[in-house]
Amino acid sequence: MKDLKDRIRTQGKYLGKGILKVDGFINHQVDPILMKSCGSALASKFSDVAATKILTAEISGIAPALMTAMYLNLPVVYARKHKPVTMPDEVLLTLAPSHTKGRLVELIISPEYLQAGEKALIIDDFLASGQTILGLANLAEAAGADVVGIGTLIEKTFEDGRSALSKLNVPIKSLAPISEMSESNIVFAD
Amino acid sequence: MKDLKDRIRTQGKYLGKGILKVDGFINHQVDPILMKSCGSALASKFSDVAATKILTAEISGIAPALMTAMYLNLPVVYARKHKPVTMPDEVLLTLAPSHTKGRLVELIISPEYLQAGEKALIIDDFLASGQTILGLANLAEAAGADVVGIGTLIEKTFEDGRSALSKLNVPIKSLAPISEMSESNIVFAD
Repeated sequence: MKDLKDRIRTQGKYLGKGILKVDGFINHQVDPILMKSCGSALASKFSDVAATKILTAEISGIAPALMTAMYLNLPVVYARKHKPVTMPDEVLLTLAPSHTKGRLVELIISPEYLQAGEKALIIDDFLASGQTILGLANLAEAAGADVVGIGTLIEKTFEDGRSALSKLNVPIKSLAPISEMSESNIVFAD
Repeated sequence: MKDLKDRIRTQGKYLGKGILKVDGFINHQVDPILMKSCGSALASKFSDVAATKILTAEISGIAPALMTAMYLNLPVVYARKHKPVTMPDEVLLTLAPSHTKGRLVELIISPEYLQAGEKALIIDDFLASGQTILGLANLAEAAGADVVGIGTLIEKTFEDGRSALSKLNVPIKSLAPISEMSESNIVFAD
């Protein structure tokens, strides 16, 4: 997707250790017009999967998931990393390794909002190692729901999250797949 | 705002101790169409304050802030509660008491995205005691930015956050002000 790639080229910053800083337009400051375009593009890519719900993880998955959901007219559920007081005692919980935090984080969903038979489209900001998305897929499975697709804004193809997710056997689409990053250059895979 | 009030009436649940559960449509599962209407309504209320940026706090402020920002065509900055690796060493940081967590939480903004002279419109899901919003106002002040308005989806008028925020001397608007809650009844103030 040209708008997103252009923004990454001009405002993204490679910080080393595989970390791409995009917090000027995706995950600290958000450009709502860019995010709306991304939501529209992701919605188009998954218009035929008959999803009944969008699934994401807090925090930075919320913006792209919400905009995709707006176009598909579907509710979004975002997995929490800490159980709030409003959640029932019995929850769906899994652990997923966080690359940027260097430790396991909890992903928690209330069974009130993800039920057997639902068709979940997973949307997130990044596809890197695929571990967060795999965690969301585990929660869907625990609920008896099916994952019907995976869409992300940015993919680091060199971390090969697609292999980790291949067992899910669903379409995986990203708007800006990056095959190579250095301080001087960001190379897109398509 | 009728749509939001109707949803609170039919799907909101009073859990006691002043806590209203709205996680079926605002802060765990999000209805993007309702949220879009709320964003449109908040944008209308603040169309004349000449804001240059929307300011909110993760996590549940993101959805209403993003939708308001979409209508006003302004960037959103959401204060982080944990400093991510992509943030510079020097940050804007304040502490705010969290009612639902029962402890102080950090609110952190990178000075890259909130600068002197900016006009910040604060948008959040709830106005209760006003402490989170006051924390955001403190961050704006530390950046040399002005707060030009405060808008929320729901207000618990009985917690009197307006008094705590009155020293900011800016318009405060909420779409669903609640004056009284019990297990059997939710009463709106307007």
